[in-house]
Amino acid sequence: MHAGTGELVASAIIKAAQKTGMPEGVFSNLNSSGIEVGTELLKHPGVKAVGFTGSIKGGRALYNLAAQRDEPIPVFAEMGSINPVVILPEALQEKGTEWAKTYANSITLGTGQFCTNPGLLLGIKGEKLSTFIDTLSQEIIKIEPSCMLHPNILGAYEANRKKATSQAELKVVAEYESTIKENYARQTVTTVSGNTFLNNATLHQEVFGPYSMVVACNDAKQLQTIISKLEGQLTGTIIASNSEIETYEDVISAMQNRVGRLIFNGVPTGVEVCPSMNHGGPYPASTDSRFTAVGIHSIKRWVRPFSYQDWPNNLLPDALKNNNPLGISRLVNNKQTHDVII
Amino acid sequence: MHAGTGELVASAIIKAAQKTGMPEGVFSNLNSSGIEVGTELLKHPGVKAVGFTGSIKGGRALYNLAAQRDEPIPVFAEMGSINPVVILPEALQEKGTEWAKTYANSITLGTGQFCTNPGLLLGIKGEKLSTFIDTLSQEIIKIEPSCMLHPNILGAYEANRKKATSQAELKVVAEYESTIKENYARQTVTTVSGNTFLNNATLHQEVFGPYSMVVACNDAKQLQTIISKLEGQLTGTIIASNSEIETYEDVISAMQNRVGRLIFNGVPTGVEVCPSMNHGGPYPASTDSRFTAVGIHSIKRWVRPFSYQDWPNNLLPDALKNNNPLGISRLVNNKQTHDVII
Repeated sequence: MHAGTGELVASAIIKAAQKTGMPEGVFSNLNSSGIEVGTELLKHPGVKAVGFTGSIKGGRALYNLAAQRDEPIPVFAEMGSINPVVILPEALQEKGTEWAKTYANSITLGTGQFCTNPGLLLGIKGEKLSTFIDTLSQEIIKIEPSCMLHPNILGAYEANRKKATSQAELKVVAEYESTIKENYARQTVTTVSGNTFLNNATLHQEVFGPYSMVVACNDAKQLQTIISKLEGQLTGTIIASNSEIETYEDVISAMQNRVGRLIFNGVPTGVEVCPSMNHGGPYPASTDSRFTAVGIHSIKRWVRPFSYQDWPNNLLPDALKNNNPLGISRLVNNKQTHDVII
Repeated sequence: MHAGTGELVASAIIKAAQKTGMPEGVFSNLNSSGIEVGTELLKHPGVKAVGFTGSIKGGRALYNLAAQRDEPIPVFAEMGSINPVVILPEALQEKGTEWAKTYANSITLGTGQFCTNPGLLLGIKGEKLSTFIDTLSQEIIKIEPSCMLHPNILGAYEANRKKATSQAELKVVAEYESTIKENYARQTVTTVSGNTFLNNATLHQEVFGPYSMVVACNDAKQLQTIISKLEGQLTGTIIASNSEIETYEDVISAMQNRVGRLIFNGVPTGVEVCPSMNHGGPYPASTDSRFTAVGIHSIKRWVRPFSYQDWPNNLLPDALKNNNPLGISRLVNNKQTHDVII
């Protein structure tokens, strides 16, 4: 949908590759209005691995094709996620208004198109949660709507939003209603009971855009049950007081089992490119939860381990040579060391 | 085929698990005469990953089932391998007799049932290779045949050996012919030209047992072509003089592209359990070349990365706590250190 922008970016990457002496063809930008180009690439015997960011439907289709090849290849697809956020009563007591404002911003950040967008807020029913829902609703309506990436994404947002809000026993508590520009999205907040959520799998599905649903659970036990029944997620967030984070141990344990990154008293939107980042999670957050799509370890998707046995020192890669010409830390006879090997 | 032995071993493992306080059910030994038990286990939603050692047919069947699940799971199948060995002319000139004796032993080690058994020896045609083939044939016949693991494996060995040796333009140069005991296997060495090997994919298939084929290539170029057309392998071995290992750079590079472990002037049989071991390789040696089945890194098949963001220090796993209670080396702000975090 932005082929011109894509071409500009691609030409910059190719120039950078040439300037830094990388091999011809190290980068290609291919365009297609359908799935043909991707399908043909994936089937080609010369292709050994695939990375993908997009929908569950698209990622799974690529995964299935890759698994059916004579030589199966890995597909690292980062797909859907509703990034559950648990908001506990004492935390709301302490600073509920602040969390409501923070989450109004997180839900609408980038018109809700972050893969780590918080689409599901889980609380325990009661006065504090009701007040939070009211404040969140008031705050999110104040935010100016913004433009989605392209009309198809807006179309899908509207269709999914309509499907979600038409479910029985769901209440729309906030919806931007004034006139908006073309391709802009109306932020929306809904709420359901824990029972309703548990009994309707449609409510577990992602509404990609500035949409979030607050689930009012009966108690900690139901909260834990709901989390354990969620599909795999990129992130999970716990908003808790210092005492709650210790008393809700089972809830946190359930969350850890379903996500790739656990956040304490923050928002899931925003992904730092650093060694400790994990951007991935149990299926369908990603097709391979053993790898991250962001951070230095993401390179591991494209390499494989290799052993040299009794190989002549002068022919080893520099990283393995006895005199350690790269000056790196290495495991030698079970000891991590920068030393040369004598 | 050894259910009683299996049960004895299983009971020892379960006792060890109990003595060391591991959870109930951490280990189970299930028996089946067919594929039903494995199939049902693999389809169960509670099963999250599969390890397997066996045939390409069996491993691929499990892989296919796992990829078709609603939630696909990884299958780490270590499957077939013919473990190519390149034997270069100068190395044969220097000590051809010694290599022939060494390989007669390696081919018959464990009745040829090592997954790293050298099933394919690649040389360059000429007097030195002919002498090597003669010596290897004489030496391998001297070795007493031994018993295979069970009658089905022997049956498959006999069928595959018959299929291989009935191929056109293949010559049987050694075959143990005296009377042997029940379930014992007859070691066999065959030879073909490089052209014949290139044109007959049946010759690329594994004959699991004490069988090896010597391919006499026209020249280094054909040797490289043959290697590049092989399927993925656990190991590749280069028998070379000091000068040959530098001049046959393209041959070695082709080999590196097809294997998970490269051995210089040795035998592939024997796998050390150590951090630098890689026991795996491009498909079909294994279904996932990014993981090893042997050595400390094999544990990575069963874990996934996880990020804790802003998580309270006292609730972090010990490995991540600020005061480093385990005393391990950690990456802190891009520096590998044993230090505590202040």
